[in-house]
Formats: sequence, structure tokens, C-alpha cells
Amino acid sequence: MLKGTGVSDGCGIGTAVVIKEEALDYSAVIYTSADEEKARLNAAVNTFCKKTENIAAALEKNAGEKEAAILHGHIEMIHDPFMVSQMQEQIDAGAVAEAAVETVCNTFMEMFAGVQDELTRQRVSDIRDIRDDMLRILLGIRSVDLGAVPPGSVLVARDFTPSMTGRLKKENVQAIVAEVGGMTSHSAILARAMGIPAVLSVPSATQAIRDGDSLIVDGFTGEILTDPDAQTVAGYRARQAQWDQEKEALLSFCRLPTVTANGVQKAVYGNIGRPEDVQSVVQNGGEGIGLFRTEFLFMDRASEPSEEEQFEAYSTVAKAMNGREVIIRTLDIGGDKEIPYLSIEKEENPFLGHRAIRYCLDHQELFKRQLRAILRASAYGNLKIMLPLVTSAQEIEAARQLIDTCKQELQNAGVAVRAVPVGIMVETPAAALISDELAGMADFFSIGTNDLTGYVMAVDRGNAAVAGLYDIMQPPVLRAIEMTIKNAKKAGIPVGMCGEGAADERLIPKLLEWGLDEFSVSASSILRTRKIISEQNA
Amino acid sequence: MLKGTGVSDGCGIGTAVVIKEEALDYSAVIYTSADEEKARLNAAVNTFCKKTENIAAALEKNAGEKEAAILHGHIEMIHDPFMVSQMQEQIDAGAVAEAAVETVCNTFMEMFAGVQDELTRQRVSDIRDIRDDMLRILLGIRSVDLGAVPPGSVLVARDFTPSMTGRLKKENVQAIVAEVGGMTSHSAILARAMGIPAVLSVPSATQAIRDGDSLIVDGFTGEILTDPDAQTVAGYRARQAQWDQEKEALLSFCRLPTVTANGVQKAVYGNIGRPEDVQSVVQNGGEGIGLFRTEFLFMDRASEPSEEEQFEAYSTVAKAMNGREVIIRTLDIGGDKEIPYLSIEKEENPFLGHRAIRYCLDHQELFKRQLRAILRASAYGNLKIMLPLVTSAQEIEAARQLIDTCKQELQNAGVAVRAVPVGIMVETPAAALISDELAGMADFFSIGTNDLTGYVMAVDRGNAAVAGLYDIMQPPVLRAIEMTIKNAKKAGIPVGMCGEGAADERLIPKLLEWGLDEFSVSASSILRTRKIISEQNA
Repeated sequence: MLKGTGVSDGCGIGTAVVIKEEALDYSAVIYTSADEEKARLNAAVNTFCKKTENIAAALEKNAGEKEAAILHGHIEMIHDPFMVSQMQEQIDAGAVAEAAVETVCNTFMEMFAGVQDELTRQRVSDIRDIRDDMLRILLGIRSVDLGAVPPGSVLVARDFTPSMTGRLKKENVQAIVAEVGGMTSHSAILARAMGIPAVLSVPSATQAIRDGDSLIVDGFTGEILTDPDAQTVAGYRARQAQWDQEKEALLSFCRLPTVTANGVQKAVYGNIGRPEDVQSVVQNGGEGIGLFRTEFLFMDRASEPSEEEQFEAYSTVAKAMNGREVIIRTLDIGGDKEIPYLSIEKEENPFLGHRAIRYCLDHQELFKRQLRAILRASAYGNLKIMLPLVTSAQEIEAARQLIDTCKQELQNAGVAVRAVPVGIMVETPAAALISDELAGMADFFSIGTNDLTGYVMAVDRGNAAVAGLYDIMQPPVLRAIEMTIKNAKKAGIPVGMCGEGAADERLIPKLLEWGLDEFSVSASSILRTRKIISEQNA
Repeated sequence: MLKGTGVSDGCGIGTAVVIKEEALDYSAVIYTSADEEKARLNAAVNTFCKKTENIAAALEKNAGEKEAAILHGHIEMIHDPFMVSQMQEQIDAGAVAEAAVETVCNTFMEMFAGVQDELTRQRVSDIRDIRDDMLRILLGIRSVDLGAVPPGSVLVARDFTPSMTGRLKKENVQAIVAEVGGMTSHSAILARAMGIPAVLSVPSATQAIRDGDSLIVDGFTGEILTDPDAQTVAGYRARQAQWDQEKEALLSFCRLPTVTANGVQKAVYGNIGRPEDVQSVVQNGGEGIGLFRTEFLFMDRASEPSEEEQFEAYSTVAKAMNGREVIIRTLDIGGDKEIPYLSIEKEENPFLGHRAIRYCLDHQELFKRQLRAILRASAYGNLKIMLPLVTSAQEIEAARQLIDTCKQELQNAGVAVRAVPVGIMVETPAAALISDELAGMADFFSIGTNDLTGYVMAVDRGNAAVAGLYDIMQPPVLRAIEMTIKNAKKAGIPVGMCGEGAADERLIPKLLEWGLDEFSVSASSILRTRKIISEQNA
């Protein structure tokens, strides 16, 4: 049995199609003249762009805009004037077009690989993809076309690049297996978007698995069985059928309100990172947005989004939700979320450092740009402001003062501003311990279970050596949650939860018992959460 | 005004004696023969040892054994066969003795500077000291003798080395100022041991201050005033007199029991890191040891101390305390305390990582060696075992099982073992939140305020950007402490505190109100803590 990381749910049963990477050897290519080589390079760039455009179009249909955007990025990169002029210089110095492409791409890859920022480093695989594609075009080697695999295939490769997966037909592919990649890699995002079971990070998969092998790929557990017997296959088929059936059954909850078995009204909201994520929350019947992670607007770009850009994003979401509640969390940066252009110093213990509300209160101009954008957008829907990582009453007071200042400034300028409720994340032991006091100062609570669990247990959830202690069902974490909910109820303010815990079937019965009002979960968990709530008494 | 780090309390008023480092230039020395140079080297080593022995003897009288030990270390180092043979090789290759000393010492310094371990890196300054001393001897330059400074001197230097300070007479020195060094540097330890006010880390002090300047050195605030007017001097003199008077008044508390104003018996204990620290706890009238930080036995050495060595340390403390309570905390490594030979992996958030009880339960043989040593030492006094960083009932159960196993093994081998109570540090939000449950499983609690404050507030106390939130008086921290004390009292187990908070005059009234039994503080804070308690009602 092979084992990797399950990154897309479901069991795939099928026949292995192992994609070997062909050698891109250009040692036999002979240099004729600089003009000739430049012409070859130019033609290859044109072919590359046309081919990539086609794949992007196919990908947009199959997997969504996000996937296609990666390929549009490739086209932009190959047109980068610096990259092109570097390649031409190489040719002037006597290199064939292939060598020019390889040398320049490798230099760029090295450059990006040395950068601290995780997102920039991911560019390395983009450029590898461009380099290999360009070499294939120059050498006349046909690229792998995954659109042509027969039905019942399980695809096995070192890695899946956007250019390989563009024409992939989901009805023919039972599962995906790759040697590299994790939860957030391109292969994982693509697999989830297409609903194909996937297991990544399986070392030497392309050697251990042979073309034509019969495979079971378990996207839940990350297990891969080779040449299973009939009984095992039957077991997995039954499991997969049950899962399909459950998924189907969940659809009936899409248009239903969230009501407990004993008739108490609750609400299931969705968490989003960007305006375009609203769509899948609405599709899955989310009754509101319980967490808009605004830091995603600030990531993966070269400079801070302007007040105008932010206003655009917040008002788009407000309008799309059409009067339903949208809880906007103010910038939660630092910790594990680096933003290069804000030049946040590297810290010894980033999770215990200068992040979220702490950073914002120390960078008031940045904070005010965001607050103004939210206040302006409030005219277009039902917005609430939520402050992250609060540990003291003073922080709430300071933030409220800033919000009032922004409101005053906008009103003085003649801009319409609604009264926007201001609530807090309860995600530190401090906030839970004084939740009785804080409930008098906040318009609502939302319990953030990921950070709360880590801080209460004094555990970094990314550290495998202590992962055993990171469990929301640990008694002290439950105490902190119970305390928070009860103090909110006593003060008469609404209380929600926007961490993983809100979708946890072990926890939901307790949350209902304590009186939680709103469960904010990822779009894909909305229906299951509503179903679990409907089976419990409150 | 200059500003540095105050590392030894008190105000010193006096006249600056600026110690300039002379150039150790040997370019005029001529090589005669290898034998001649080796003879010179040999003679210098002998002179060095004799001189250093003399200074060590003086230092032992003035400042204590610890200070002298550093110089004995220097003598050992210069006799290191590898160091000596390296110098001789240099001479054989044509170097004069001075060059041989300099080259070899510099190589060693570079070597040590590259080591991760903080304590090894401190060796660099030891070797610099040896090198400069040896060069002075070879060149016939007289060393700085701080024994000869006139009364009323304030010493100003780049750094104070043990060889410089050996003959220093404390009655002549009002204060010490250095350009380098922090709380734990040699200069700081020496100043505190001699009771001389000191400010370190004052950049360019030897340039900014001129010989003969009139100075006020404030060891509390780290401020240095140059040429102060008469009024300022009078103010500082009054302050210093008051401080001296308070220190004097505290002495009356040395032989008194700890009793509140309304007659309730409490106890003030001392915290120690090594067996020799017991002395100052006893001298200051400590009624027990509330925290023996055993990790110090594991630090600054090349390998783990054997069970036998540990037994020696624990039984020495047990005997020295003569029947009074000694609470031994089991190994609290990881976090900020690195131990090179245990090869603990570097973590992203070390304070939320694999440390203390977590590490020990995952390294049972190491843990059992310590537990056996404590159990064996229990026959010699009144020992208790304390588990650090507990977050769950399971950890207490697992540790208790291991202790029972060790006890059984010892008894089977015919070794006498007393019943040793097993308590826990309450220093995580988790432990405080379920302190009612844990009180049923632990024989006592001791609240560790440093870690508790950090975890409750989600703040790394070493991070200046968030230091404002790190305060034991923050309401949620007080809640966690109150909860813990009350749950201990309800369960009928003793509860102490062994963090900085136990000596904090803002906190002590509350601790007495809630019912804390035992206050464990640094030896130098014992008397002041007892005095504060005696002025309050319980």
C-alpha cells in the first residue's frame, strides 16, 4: 500500500495511466545564426501563447476562472520584456533558442526560489512549466494531453501542471495521484474544483505504480491500494456509493432554513476570502457570510489595495448577499500570513507576536483605509465589522474610536454611512476569560476555534511533534467555548463560531446546548452542517 | 544623558575612571629561533597561570566562588593540549610567540562564535580575555589593575573581564558602566554579587564619557547623568539613602516567619537553578525551595548529566534545606532553553512547541533517569515533584505511571524511597481552565506567572512590539490565577506561585485575598515579599 496526503474527498477505482516526463534533450540542435535562432524563439513564443490560450479556455469551462487565471499569468510572463531580452542576449552570445530558454528560466527560478515569501516561491513551478512547454514546442515534442485518456483512468504523475490538466475530462478520470504537492497546491485545488478524488505527496509514485495497474485511491485517508481483490473493490465501491448518496441527500438541505429537531431557528453562514467566493456560499445555501477574511485582498500582490479597491470588494459582497448579513473581519496579518510589502519583521514566535488588531492599531492609516472602505460599502448591504485577536477592553475601545473618527470624516464629506455593528473574534484565552466584560462592549461575538484551540493548549497547530494536543474537544477548549457562549447569551448579544469547530459533528451538539446562534463554515460544509443541526435538539 | 540597561540596583555617584584598551602591537618583535619562541610562550603561560590564580583568590574573597570559577576555567583552557600544540606548530612555521597566541586564539574564537548554543558562544569572550592577557605578558605591558582606583570612582570600560575585576575593591567603586553586556553577562553578575550599581549596553560610553567627569549612574533605570548640578546630586543621594535604609530594614524580616497583618501564616520560598544557589535562599530566610529549575543541570555541558550526578544535586539540596520543603520541577527544556546534545529540532513557534512535560513523556528513558534520581534523593529530605506545562489530565496520569514504575524498580533493587507528592505547574490557559479537574489529580499546584501571562494574552514576552500586552495585572490573567487558587482551595490542596508575580506588590494583596499559600521568589526578593505580606490582610 502507498500512502500520501488525501486532498480531495472520495474513492477512485480505476486503471493507472502513468505520465512519465520525457527528456527535453537539445544537444543535437545546431546553431545557424542569431537571426535564425531569434526567429525560432519568436515562433515558439507565439505557439506557446496560442496553445496556452486554448487550454485556459478549456480549463475555464471545466474547473473555473481561478484555474484559467494561472495560465493567463504564464502568457504574461513569457511576454515580460526583461525575460525576452535576456533570451535574445543569450542567443547573441551563441546559444541556440533552447539553451536561451533554459538558461533564462533557470535563472528566474533560482531568483524566485530564494525569496522568503511563500507565494513568490510558488512562481518557481510556474516558470518550470513555461520552460518545459517552450522546450517541447522548440523540439517538436508533443505535450501530454490528458484530454485523451480513456474512461476509468487514474492519473499518476510527478506533478500536474495547469497546461497538462487543461483539457482533462472529469468523466474519464477516477482519481489523481502525484509525487509532490499538498492541500494548497495547484493539483489539489484543481481536483477539488472538479470533484475528483486525489492523493498527493506520494514519493516515487511514478515508479511504484506501473501503467495499467488496477488501483484504489482513497482521497479521505490518502491510501492507495494496488491490484486489490474483488472483495476490497466491492467494499470501496459501496463506500463511494454511500458517499455519493450522502452528497445527493445533502442537496435537499440547500433551500431549507436551519432549524433544530426541536424547532429552534439557527443559521449556517459561509467563510470567504475573496468576493468571487460568495458564489459558492450562495449555491450551497449559506444564509450569510460569517467571516470575510480580508487579508486575502492584501496577499499575492505588490502593494496595498487602495481604499477604492477595498470598497469595490466589500460592496460587491454586500450587494451579492442581497441584504443578508456579511461579517467583515479587519486585517488579520502576521502570524503565518506574511505580506511582503508591509515589511512585517520576522518574529521568534509569530503566533504570539505583532499581528491582527495589534498590528492595525499600531498602523492607523492602513487600518483607517480599510475601515473607511467598509463604512462606505455599508450603504450597499448588511455589513458588520469584526476585530481579530482581541485580548483587552482597551483594544475594542481604541478600534471603536477609530471607527467613529472614520464615520465622522465620511459624513463631513457628505458620504452616507449606516450604523455598522462592531463585534470581536473570541480566539484568545484572554478574550474567553473576560468574555463577560467584553460582551458589554461588543455588538456580537464570533468564536475562532483554530487559534483558540492553539492558544488554550499552548500548541502550534503546524508542529507535528505536538499535534496530538491540538484538538477542539480537549476539555479546557470546551470550557473556554462554553464560557464565551454563556456570557454572550447573558449579555443578550448574538454569538457565532467561524473556525473548523462549527462544522465538527462532535462539537455541534454541545454548541446547540450552550446556545450558539450562527455556524460559519466553508462553502463545502454548509449543507452537512445544516443537516447535523437539524438532527439535534437545542 | 546616556542610557543603557540597568543590571544591578542602586544609584552610584562619583568620578569617571575611563579604562581605554591599549593596542597590543607586536610588529617589532623579531623571531630568533623556534626553541626561543617556545620558551617565551612557555614562560608566558606560567606567568599567566600564576597571575590568574592570584586574581581568582582575590575574586573569591570579594565576589564569591562563582566568579573565581571563571578564572580557574581560563587556566584550564590555556593548558588545553590542543591549544598548546597548535601554538607550537605556529611557532615551528615561523611565527613569533605573540602571533602564535593571537592566531590560535582567534581561530578558537571563530569556532565558538559559530556555535548555536548561547553558553558556548560566551566562551568567545573568555578566549579574548586569555589572548589579550597573554599578549600583555609577552609584550611586558602592565594590565589594568582596578584594585588601585581611588575611592569614589565610577568605572567606565568597553567590557569588564574577570581578570580586570579580580582585585577590584567594592568600597572604592560607586558604579560600573560598560559598552556591552546584558543581564546575564559577567559584568552584571559580578556587579550584583558585589552590590555595585551597574549600567551596561551603553554604546560608545568610553568616548562619550571623559576621565574625571562627574557622573550619576542609576542602576534602576539605566540612566547616566554627566556633570549633574548640586540639586540633582542631592536628589539621587536621598534616593540612594532611602534604598539603603529599606535594604537594612528588610534584614529584620530574615528570621521572622511569614505572617499577614491579621495573623495568617503564609510561606515565602526561594527559586533556584543549581545546588549552590541554596545558600543565598537560606541566607535570605527562605522557608523552602518552591522551584528547583533542573534544566540548569542539563545546560552548559557536552552531555546529559547521569542519574548519579542528578542524584548528587537533588540530595545535596534536600540535605541543605534540612527537612524544609524542596519542590523539584522536572526538565523544562525547549522553548527558549536550548540543550545542544538533546538535538531538539528548531521550531517555528518554540513557545507553542515540543517542550517540558511534552518532550519528557516522548523521551521516557531521559525522564526516568531524572525521576529515579529524585526518588532516590527523597530519602535525604522533604522533596516534591512538579510537572511543567501540563495541559491535560492524561499528561498527569502518564507521568504518575512512570513515577510509580521507577518507584517499583527502585524498591525491587532494595533502594529506600519515600512517598513523594506530585504536583503541577499551572502555567497554561488549559490548566487554569480545568484546574477544578486537575486539582483532583495533583497533590499541589504552583502557578507559573511568566508563561501563564504569555499564553493567556497570546504574547511572546521577548517581542518588544507586543510587550505592552504582557502584564500580569491584565484582567484575564488575574481571572486565570483566581480560578486556579480557588479550585485548589476547594479541593484542599496547597497552592503556590513561582513566577515573577509572587513578588509583585500590585498582585500580592489579591493573592492573599484568594488564599495563595506559598510565594516562591528569587533569593533577593524573599525579604521584600515577606514584608509586603506582613502589611496585608489575608
